[in-house]
Amino acid sequence: MNDRSSIRQTATDVTQTLARYLVAARFEDLPAAPREEAARSLLNWMGVAVGGSRHEAVEIALAAVAPFSGPAQATVFGRTERLDIMHAALLNGISSHVFDFDDTDLTTAVHPSAPVVPVLLALAEYREVTGRDFVNAMILGIEAACRVARAVTPTMQAVGWHATGVAGVFGAAVAAGKLLGLDETRMCHAIGLAATQPVGIREMFGSMTKSFHPGRAAQNGMLAALLAEKGYTSSLKGIEAPRGWANVLSTTRDFQVITEGLGTHYEISRNSYKPFACGLVVHPVIDGCIQLRDENKLTAEMIDRIDLAVHPIVLELTANRTPRTGLEGKFSVYYAAAIGIVAGRAGEAQFGEALVRDPVVTGLRDRVETTVDPSLGQDQARVNIKLKDGRVLGRFVEHAVGSVENPMTDARLAAKFIELAEGILPDDRVHRLMTLCRDVERLDDAGDIARAAAG
Amino acid sequence: MNDRSSIRQTATDVTQTLARYLVAARFEDLPAAPREEAARSLLNWMGVAVGGSRHEAVEIALAAVAPFSGPAQATVFGRTERLDIMHAALLNGISSHVFDFDDTDLTTAVHPSAPVVPVLLALAEYREVTGRDFVNAMILGIEAACRVARAVTPTMQAVGWHATGVAGVFGAAVAAGKLLGLDETRMCHAIGLAATQPVGIREMFGSMTKSFHPGRAAQNGMLAALLAEKGYTSSLKGIEAPRGWANVLSTTRDFQVITEGLGTHYEISRNSYKPFACGLVVHPVIDGCIQLRDENKLTAEMIDRIDLAVHPIVLELTANRTPRTGLEGKFSVYYAAAIGIVAGRAGEAQFGEALVRDPVVTGLRDRVETTVDPSLGQDQARVNIKLKDGRVLGRFVEHAVGSVENPMTDARLAAKFIELAEGILPDDRVHRLMTLCRDVERLDDAGDIARAAAG
Repeated sequence: MNDRSSIRQTATDVTQTLARYLVAARFEDLPAAPREEAARSLLNWMGVAVGGSRHEAVEIALAAVAPFSGPAQATVFGRTERLDIMHAALLNGISSHVFDFDDTDLTTAVHPSAPVVPVLLALAEYREVTGRDFVNAMILGIEAACRVARAVTPTMQAVGWHATGVAGVFGAAVAAGKLLGLDETRMCHAIGLAATQPVGIREMFGSMTKSFHPGRAAQNGMLAALLAEKGYTSSLKGIEAPRGWANVLSTTRDFQVITEGLGTHYEISRNSYKPFACGLVVHPVIDGCIQLRDENKLTAEMIDRIDLAVHPIVLELTANRTPRTGLEGKFSVYYAAAIGIVAGRAGEAQFGEALVRDPVVTGLRDRVETTVDPSLGQDQARVNIKLKDGRVLGRFVEHAVGSVENPMTDARLAAKFIELAEGILPDDRVHRLMTLCRDVERLDDAGDIARAAAG
Repeated sequence: MNDRSSIRQTATDVTQTLARYLVAARFEDLPAAPREEAARSLLNWMGVAVGGSRHEAVEIALAAVAPFSGPAQATVFGRTERLDIMHAALLNGISSHVFDFDDTDLTTAVHPSAPVVPVLLALAEYREVTGRDFVNAMILGIEAACRVARAVTPTMQAVGWHATGVAGVFGAAVAAGKLLGLDETRMCHAIGLAATQPVGIREMFGSMTKSFHPGRAAQNGMLAALLAEKGYTSSLKGIEAPRGWANVLSTTRDFQVITEGLGTHYEISRNSYKPFACGLVVHPVIDGCIQLRDENKLTAEMIDRIDLAVHPIVLELTANRTPRTGLEGKFSVYYAAAIGIVAGRAGEAQFGEALVRDPVVTGLRDRVETTVDPSLGQDQARVNIKLKDGRVLGRFVEHAVGSVENPMTDARLAAKFIELAEGILPDDRVHRLMTLCRDVERLDDAGDIARAAAG
């Protein structure tokens, strides 16, 4: 039989062991590190959600669902509309992923906040939720999504699934289930209802539907928890059963990573944030170019040529020499290097149509050359800039900014947030929202964050 | 690589060819046979939806989603509640599948009406839809769901997917997209948005989540069409791309069956309806027992023993000798034979707790013996009843009632409808609703059907 049944594997009580931990886990038991990372993840997530809130994909989705929305229970961030909590989670999930600028679990390629945080913020507007409960549920949701994804990485992604949608739905269900106070059996049923609603095939990358995936995963997971809360039944073995999630979606699975060391280390501690609004693979090049620019006050006119040595995947994914749109610019290492020099930054604004066609930028872009060096890591690059005055400037980027080894500082996260939110929210609110995110665990009412993010 | 990429297959323009046909297809071009089958399918579907409307799964789902529902746009059949069209589609999809008594495409195991009809009826209450447009969209939705499922049958089911949810979502998207008047490109995007939202893993069989699958597939497909209508983009190759639906969900695929002969034969013509409220595999046994009972006026007391010769799958799925609940009774060929004799029917009422424990029924059940005969077809059985007076009555069931070769007559469909709907709807409305379903293509406003099904 060509049905993979011969290689089905199962394990005992994966779902129940996970659920038991999730139900019992308390804020009081959390070390400082994951709590601090939760506040950083929340800040980063809110920035990209507000920043993405005017994107065409969000406008269209809102126009499509608004006639069917329930009561105005929750905020669509960066906007004036309010929707029922499930539709708000959908919309906020879309806007937070639409720039491809949200956080990343580098092991699994799950963007962990996008399916989880919209659920929590919507529920925090609907029921009273303390900052402590919010942080606990956020950490646990991310824990579940990343662990379940790791059990099937990299095979599930290779099969063609978008990890953020198909594993993220567990994060949403768990986060919602934790806030709803589900017991162990109901948490299992919520996980099962999540398991049966995976969202996202990779064919959709490059279209609006990519950002639909975390949005719908958020909504599906929330529905799963709401159904389980009322007594809807699914399975106590949704993850590990012979025809459960892991066996159906993947051809390999390592169930142990789902349950080992629960409560002793936290997935959120390995979360990473993008400094640049494009694929991670070109981040080392941009980082190196910006460093040399800032240290030497470089302008495009001073430069004769730029030579880049890069990891092989860079040219597999971003070899476009002549991008014509902002989106194409995100997939051009040549454009990325040039924009690093010309703009000294690479936020969403630097991937707009005007700069992509700017003659200074395109002129420099055409003086960039690349060499593949398989000895380099994915977060490494070598940048050599030959100046017209004969000097040669070199920089080896060992770990690009934003990688786990070289994380974004709080100051850089704040600058990223401000850049994304300003112009959409009034200035005083940008700062108030930033403070609320940082102070989340000290809030009496986490719904304050959501209300402050209204446009 | 263990990622199946080596065996990926694709084909040219499957999604676009299908979409082009769907957009152009007119009611006027439909032969009489599929139109008549659409009316029969609608009648059968409405009966099981009304009949299932008081099931615990429906009560729970309604309690869970009601606080988040939008305006009262559409009827929950058999009930007084009205919800927005997407939630109404979810609930009506659940109630129509919860008895496992709805229609079946025997080739793919897709229950074709459950994800499609709730979408159409909800839209018919929200926008004006003529009976002709309704029938056309229903036939096309079922066409798409069954063809896409056939392309990956039986491998996709063996992988562990519930065909009704993961292929049914295409039916829902297409049916909605047709009523919304999508052009070819938008129909492709709707199909792509459906492709990325498959619902249902087989682990959920036996729990309430099985009936959630067609309900959520209906809702997902409707959302797909509504998003595409407003311009949300997905892919023009959602079905056939290397990381599209067919390659991600299955390990084999035959794309030709999706596009060959479109408009010359109709999937709905092969639709089948269950006379008995249990798995199809025990239908031949029940049919034979009821025939012998009616012809010989048998009672349990007259019978010494019953010997059944059955297809091997019967004992794989329904070998439970001592069922204790109604649901277990549906998975017991011994109970099925006994109930056929004692009740002379096997509707939902005959799988209730009281009859399962009734001493006359259990006494007869314990006098049933089975033999596997691999030469029999799945719709065949041999029933031999030895009476206490020494006589032996035999019956070979060549094609069980409800099979494609021996379809339910209109009279049997009507009787099934009445049995399911009476007690839930007032008697005069049972008959009015039956008439509306039969006359669907002559209605000026197909929404009349939905309104007549309110409880």
